[in-house]
Amino acid sequence: MSSPSATQNTYPYQNEPTWSKSEKAIARTVFDAVLKRELQDVMWKTKQMANQIKEPAEVWELEHYLTERHEEIDREYDYRYSQLKQVFGRLLYEKRLGEEDSARTA
Amino acid sequence: MSSPSATQNTYPYQNEPTWSKSEKAIARTVFDAVLKRELQDVMWKTKQMANQIKEPAEVWELEHYLTERHEEIDREYDYRYSQLKQVFGRLLYEKRLGEEDSARTA
Repeated sequence: MSSPSATQNTYPYQNEPTWSKSEKAIARTVFDAVLKRELQDVMWKTKQMANQIKEPAEVWELEHYLTERHEEIDREYDYRYSQLKQVFGRLLYEKRLGEEDSARTA
Repeated sequence: MSSPSATQNTYPYQNEPTWSKSEKAIARTVFDAVLKRELQDVMWKTKQMANQIKEPAEVWELEHYLTERHEEIDREYDYRYSQLKQVFGRLLYEKRLGEEDSARTA
């Protein structure tokens, strides 16, 4: 076990990658493309749910869906460079980010 | 000015009307009918807004509309007998309660 003094006063993000200017541009393009797709999914689902509402009180189910998706998207799409590696990792794992997104940046 | 002792220990709702059993039944019928109409308005407006969404980010305008209407309706439709007189008064003033509602209870 390392002594506490070895980790004290250490810059917390020293193991984070440094993003070059071109990497930042690529990251932004990919991030925006995936977010746009995610929002489009919410839009189609919203239109579908709204169309299928038969009873007035069902509008609160749509409200609940939208509030939940809004919170999730705000939480998951965090464009801080200190977070981006994890964000892209998760998006790849969830198959929301794929090869076609790399092609976008070529 | 009355002395504090004159108002102390007074039941706070002593000026509130007492609702008879039949009045309560009428109040419930009218209340439910007006609330149903209000929710139907929200439903039609929701369907219309959802249909008109062109850009994905516009779904959050619909979310905002629904959250606001939900809060308003929860606040305005307060079925406590201590509140009902004010609730009906406001609904009449806002013309959301009319003569056809009295006919409903005849």
